[in-house]
Amino acid sequence: MLVDGVAHRTIWLSDDGESVEIIDQTLLPHAFEIVRLTSVGETAHAIKTMKVRGAPLIGATAAYGIALAMQADGGDDALDRACETLAATRPTAINLRWALDRVRSVLRPLSVQDRRDAAFQCAAEICDEDVGINEGIGAHGVDLLRAASEAKGGAVVNVLTHCNAGWLATVDWGTATAPIYRAHDAGIPVHVWVDETRPRNQGASLTAWELGHHGVPHTVIADSVGGHLMQRGKVDLCITGTDRTTATGDVCNKIGTYLKALAAHDNGVPFYIGLPSPTIDWTLSDGIAEIPIEERDGTEVSEMTGRTADGQIETVTITPKGSAVANFAFDVTPARLVTGLITERGIASASRDGLLDLFPEQG
Amino acid sequence: MLVDGVAHRTIWLSDDGESVEIIDQTLLPHAFEIVRLTSVGETAHAIKTMKVRGAPLIGATAAYGIALAMQADGGDDALDRACETLAATRPTAINLRWALDRVRSVLRPLSVQDRRDAAFQCAAEICDEDVGINEGIGAHGVDLLRAASEAKGGAVVNVLTHCNAGWLATVDWGTATAPIYRAHDAGIPVHVWVDETRPRNQGASLTAWELGHHGVPHTVIADSVGGHLMQRGKVDLCITGTDRTTATGDVCNKIGTYLKALAAHDNGVPFYIGLPSPTIDWTLSDGIAEIPIEERDGTEVSEMTGRTADGQIETVTITPKGSAVANFAFDVTPARLVTGLITERGIASASRDGLLDLFPEQG
Repeated sequence: MLVDGVAHRTIWLSDDGESVEIIDQTLLPHAFEIVRLTSVGETAHAIKTMKVRGAPLIGATAAYGIALAMQADGGDDALDRACETLAATRPTAINLRWALDRVRSVLRPLSVQDRRDAAFQCAAEICDEDVGINEGIGAHGVDLLRAASEAKGGAVVNVLTHCNAGWLATVDWGTATAPIYRAHDAGIPVHVWVDETRPRNQGASLTAWELGHHGVPHTVIADSVGGHLMQRGKVDLCITGTDRTTATGDVCNKIGTYLKALAAHDNGVPFYIGLPSPTIDWTLSDGIAEIPIEERDGTEVSEMTGRTADGQIETVTITPKGSAVANFAFDVTPARLVTGLITERGIASASRDGLLDLFPEQG
Repeated sequence: MLVDGVAHRTIWLSDDGESVEIIDQTLLPHAFEIVRLTSVGETAHAIKTMKVRGAPLIGATAAYGIALAMQADGGDDALDRACETLAATRPTAINLRWALDRVRSVLRPLSVQDRRDAAFQCAAEICDEDVGINEGIGAHGVDLLRAASEAKGGAVVNVLTHCNAGWLATVDWGTATAPIYRAHDAGIPVHVWVDETRPRNQGASLTAWELGHHGVPHTVIADSVGGHLMQRGKVDLCITGTDRTTATGDVCNKIGTYLKALAAHDNGVPFYIGLPSPTIDWTLSDGIAEIPIEERDGTEVSEMTGRTADGQIETVTITPKGSAVANFAFDVTPARLVTGLITERGIASASRDGLLDLFPEQG
């Protein structure tokens, strides 16, 4: 998507063909800086320090990390060490393991000399596949926005989204945002209500930043506001992403998604999920009973980072000394509250039957 | 309630009998400082700059402001000027007008010499009446917490609250917090989930601070977390305050209250309102249609204030340059989602009949 008018992905091979470039997302929305990765160590550090984040992007970055390792040393030991180093950066990230396993299984049978080029090619394929999935979500989802605008006589469609399921979390397009960018690029008038998404503010800092750079009209709101907007008819549909979706359509996503889905249901507002099929967990059937919810460090709640009046990045504490803090990172939205799952193959009802219609090979 | 082990109200007559003392709430939770008010000008400034906030406390402070004005000059002009100055500080605060009208109507018939003492007495009465109302809410509400604990075999009752309807918003006890303090003081084990309440963070900064000082166990959470906690059985009941309640039991309160009420309803968690009867608007019957929602300055969303590592108070901007921001301050929770209204006369169902049972004089 566009940054300062120039099309970007979140990760790409440098012009030198020997290094990889990423956007340092820890500096957003306050500064846009590109970082060059030249080794597996630098790649692991970039993932660990969240310069790159978002499940698909972490997987793609790890794949390039193996390629950089193979460039230095294509031996079996180097391959194993690189996988180990990268896997340790974000222990719970499923895409990370998946990407590492995939690249390793491609490289293992190859000669040491062939591994470097094959690794770069495999990483590029992983990136292109992610872009393809998101383009598919966009192609199907854009119909919803077009229909919503037509139903209002061509008026602006108001979409509410939560957290960042945008292109910054993927290689390009994003999941929840793919239909929005597609609509905007097609001239369908769209405006996005962006939940700030405490405690890490991914909405206010990342989603607002990327929508702004691509020219999509948007308004940042506190996480508590969506219900009021829906009561007053100011939201036409909601689209969020998902970290993990059960085979029955229960959606595990950033904490607070459930509350927006309740408000949408209470006000007859359609609630959609941008769902890349790799995040469907076909082994699960009850999201609330079966998905453990990660508890993260309380400082994400008690502290807030931003830029001061003189442009410095500063972190301030907002809670009283001595007050306990809890930080649950995700919640589960039951399938009954989800209008549809926008996948790369089409829009499914949030049910086992709906998903199996589109993915019969999982039956 | 207790601060550093010492019982406080939010406003009191100084030992000199000629000035009034308040807590500078703009410095909470980072510093506890008491400010002495000696004139109507200082009082108006304290209200305007939100050193005191919360409808009942604003009313009480304004009443003392008139007393300080009368101490300097008991004439009719001085009385009118003082009322005008104070009324202009927070134009939409209903309690402010009410308190000013009440004190003025008491003073008008009196001689100039008698007005000073009568004004101080009237202000003290307004304070004591507020405390009495909140004590009543506490006395009725504590039964709910006791029953909830007994139903769990004496285990800790988990209460979720939103914003600050605590003693800091009133003269003492608070509205939503009165049952909590009463339960805690009576030895009923209680733990409070405190919504941070973006954008102004009144939960994280004020409610957490006052609960902590009074020794009530509590945990600060992001506003998005309550639904998840209720899904997992970690909330026994919710109690919030209200800024304005219709005769039919629709509750206008801090933005986000509606989302918590939806989650409570979806999970069978009782949802109560601490409701001082002066905030019932008997002229309204449809909260969503009839109550206009104040939109406040967007900087409350885009900026965040806290203390830096070296103890300075600093404000940082968290949104991208160029992103629009909207700041709706309240929302309306329909009566159908409210389990009960805890008033100073008892607990009413959220309906016209329920309220008229307790307040038959309004029929």
